[in-house]
Amino acid sequence: MAKENQFVEQIADIDGDFPQWYTDVVLKTKLVDYGPVKGTMVIRPYGYAIWENIQQILNARFKENGVENAYFPLLIPMSYFAKEAEHVEGFAPEVAIVTIGGGEELAEPLAIRPTSETIIGNMMSKWVQSYRDLPLKVNQWCNVMRWEKTTRPFLRTSEFLWHEGHSAFVTAEEAEGFTLSMLELYKNFMENCLAIPVLTGRKTEKERFAGAVATYTMEAMMHDGKSLQSGTSHYFGQNFAKAFNIEYQGTEGNLQTAYTMSFGVSTRLIGAIIMTHGDERGLVLPPVVAPIQCVIVPIAARKGGVIERCEELKAELEAAGIRVTLDATDNSPGWKFNEWEMKGVPVRIELGPRDIEGGKMLCARRDTLEKTELPLENAAEGIKELLASVQKGLLEKARKHRDERIVYADDIDGILAGVENGKFVKAGWCGERACEDLVKEKTSATARVYAEGESREFCACCGKKAAHVIVYARAY
Amino acid sequence: MAKENQFVEQIADIDGDFPQWYTDVVLKTKLVDYGPVKGTMVIRPYGYAIWENIQQILNARFKENGVENAYFPLLIPMSYFAKEAEHVEGFAPEVAIVTIGGGEELAEPLAIRPTSETIIGNMMSKWVQSYRDLPLKVNQWCNVMRWEKTTRPFLRTSEFLWHEGHSAFVTAEEAEGFTLSMLELYKNFMENCLAIPVLTGRKTEKERFAGAVATYTMEAMMHDGKSLQSGTSHYFGQNFAKAFNIEYQGTEGNLQTAYTMSFGVSTRLIGAIIMTHGDERGLVLPPVVAPIQCVIVPIAARKGGVIERCEELKAELEAAGIRVTLDATDNSPGWKFNEWEMKGVPVRIELGPRDIEGGKMLCARRDTLEKTELPLENAAEGIKELLASVQKGLLEKARKHRDERIVYADDIDGILAGVENGKFVKAGWCGERACEDLVKEKTSATARVYAEGESREFCACCGKKAAHVIVYARAY
Repeated sequence: MAKENQFVEQIADIDGDFPQWYTDVVLKTKLVDYGPVKGTMVIRPYGYAIWENIQQILNARFKENGVENAYFPLLIPMSYFAKEAEHVEGFAPEVAIVTIGGGEELAEPLAIRPTSETIIGNMMSKWVQSYRDLPLKVNQWCNVMRWEKTTRPFLRTSEFLWHEGHSAFVTAEEAEGFTLSMLELYKNFMENCLAIPVLTGRKTEKERFAGAVATYTMEAMMHDGKSLQSGTSHYFGQNFAKAFNIEYQGTEGNLQTAYTMSFGVSTRLIGAIIMTHGDERGLVLPPVVAPIQCVIVPIAARKGGVIERCEELKAELEAAGIRVTLDATDNSPGWKFNEWEMKGVPVRIELGPRDIEGGKMLCARRDTLEKTELPLENAAEGIKELLASVQKGLLEKARKHRDERIVYADDIDGILAGVENGKFVKAGWCGERACEDLVKEKTSATARVYAEGESREFCACCGKKAAHVIVYARAY
Repeated sequence: MAKENQFVEQIADIDGDFPQWYTDVVLKTKLVDYGPVKGTMVIRPYGYAIWENIQQILNARFKENGVENAYFPLLIPMSYFAKEAEHVEGFAPEVAIVTIGGGEELAEPLAIRPTSETIIGNMMSKWVQSYRDLPLKVNQWCNVMRWEKTTRPFLRTSEFLWHEGHSAFVTAEEAEGFTLSMLELYKNFMENCLAIPVLTGRKTEKERFAGAVATYTMEAMMHDGKSLQSGTSHYFGQNFAKAFNIEYQGTEGNLQTAYTMSFGVSTRLIGAIIMTHGDERGLVLPPVVAPIQCVIVPIAARKGGVIERCEELKAELEAAGIRVTLDATDNSPGWKFNEWEMKGVPVRIELGPRDIEGGKMLCARRDTLEKTELPLENAAEGIKELLASVQKGLLEKARKHRDERIVYADDIDGILAGVENGKFVKAGWCGERACEDLVKEKTSATARVYAEGESREFCACCGKKAAHVIVYARAY
């Protein structure tokens, strides 16, 4: 078997050159390809199927929370951005602009949406007339575009896919409460579906969304100890409602202004999965969202009855709702093992004449590479348990990896030493922007999130009394 | 009850002013709203839910046919269009062009995709290396943009949502065969899910897709007798494969060129539903794709136990997989009847104290407005049967409407008289473009589709021997 490794395309060493490992893995497992325009990506079927699984789960959960899907136009008049001062400042530098349509120069240039607060704010001002129209909770699954200089598939591309939920409420409490509920929904999804533990909480003013009163984030630690901002939920207060006149008649007939929020996750989550669970053999996919949960590899496939029994088994697993494939190609078993390991399929079944005779199947789990014999009788039950165990194991392993790499520091040197060794560093902060800026300048680490409920005596930067504890990390 | 009509917003008379009726219906039932950029639409939750139901059904059927979903970039280099001569000629006049990104003028202007043959052709040329890579069947659900002068929600807008399937094959027979299979899949979907009968077949050269060898269409007759092209499946031969070098090593090692095809339907289908089934009261939605299949209206709702029994019934129907809503607002029953009729909900249940006492519910079907008493026991079963009957009834009614309006003509005056009276007119055609052009000029009708298997003696235009029979109609 070892000899046959030559047939599998090589991927870079995960610890020696993580960026190259990432590029090799996303391309060679056919998750993604580069588009012809610089900074764009093609999401190939194996990658898109992960996105579809993510969509399906989140969609159902959003709907349980009263969120309805809709679709808003791609093109936004440039003048809309100018209506919210911070928002235009934040997004204007990275928009792609349409200046020609139908062969003619446009009177007003149009931005391709980098996000849709402005156009949705504009529509909400039409739709919200009375307090009875609130809360209004809409969501769209769509493409957005942010012109980026340095790009990497899934992590940062000019165009990406995401969902953006936008809601309006009567009171500030409701709006902020829903902002936090959606953060909690995300956290639960990350941990229980993607097996990625996240730190959640508020962002500093410097790091928050352009136009928000408060941005809440979830930060996940990648294999190399860097942080990936995996999703955000923003509370806007009345910033956008005032800019776009989302006003309604209150219960007593008086004109009132709504409170709004938005929340979103993107195809970046696929990058998070790859960089959290991947290993030296390639992808390791969490069963809940894996396009293929289980692959059957026939052993001595030409022997009578082997392929037939494999097909029977496939049908049985399929009927039980398991996403299964049978690799009946003429490649050698060793080649197949390597190939499906690289593609991160959570469970592999090896089935040969002796297994069939003994009523057993040999099952290899991708996360630990352990092999177990399971009975062919009630195969689906055994595989389901194994998949559940892989799912659980991945979360535990990722949590252990992260928890071991959270350290404390009392000064900038300590923060630097930590982040250089791939750690999340918790340190005191006085609350001054100057100190936050200095940490970034000296360490390339940014304030990822407030560590709520913790306290430290002094600011790691200026030595004055600390008002907060910050989680610093280098980030994607 | 009649008095309460005043509470329902008025819609124009369907036969008196069909365009205004359409506009009233799409806006007042909250299917759609106008976007801020001319020619764009916002698809509101009630409209988007229809689209989601369409997507779900088609997606499952595409997958059964080996089609995998993927995502290709929005922006296409303008130079790509130039690679296929007919294609660039067809699409160049209606593209929206991005000239600025990240604050800088772009070296090459980028088109927002009006369709993706070119960019997908470019990617396929990378992915198809060996005959083993074929067939390659991908599909994407996405937004596309065609700069249109005259627009109407769902029917023709600058931006719309659609799916586009693109496949490559070893042989011409396979490619053309799949083109026809997908047309058949569409036809089945239209008739059995949307209850819309369609004429399917090939388009004339004048009307075919820019760059195709053959375009197959499905044409549906709307309420006013005009035709709506509801979906197309295109066979490209090697046109795009040659332009984009989709070449592979054949079984004997020789370099070969693939054969490709594409197929698509769009949010236009929502327009088709509205204009096929709608009546003077508003929308009539086919149960299979209706966002709400059944609405429960409590009668004498303040009487003890009524609301509780309605909620029980709702839970019971929901558990049986019926999309049901309970209207417990404080509007009058009459107001609710009108409102839900306008919104096209296929079945309404009225439930009051006397019904409950008698173990009955009064069910009104939206299509015929007939009311039937059904037992409350096994309510879900009764409602399911009623929904199936509505679904069937809608198709029969639409088929009758269409079949009664298909006529024959032997000259241009006959074609004109037919289309002016909202008919599909079948007429002989010699096969010359000049005759096709003249029919259009004189009657505003276009050749919608070849009537295969039929024959007429003479061309209705020039009187020479007819080579084909054409279905002429005015079209959206």
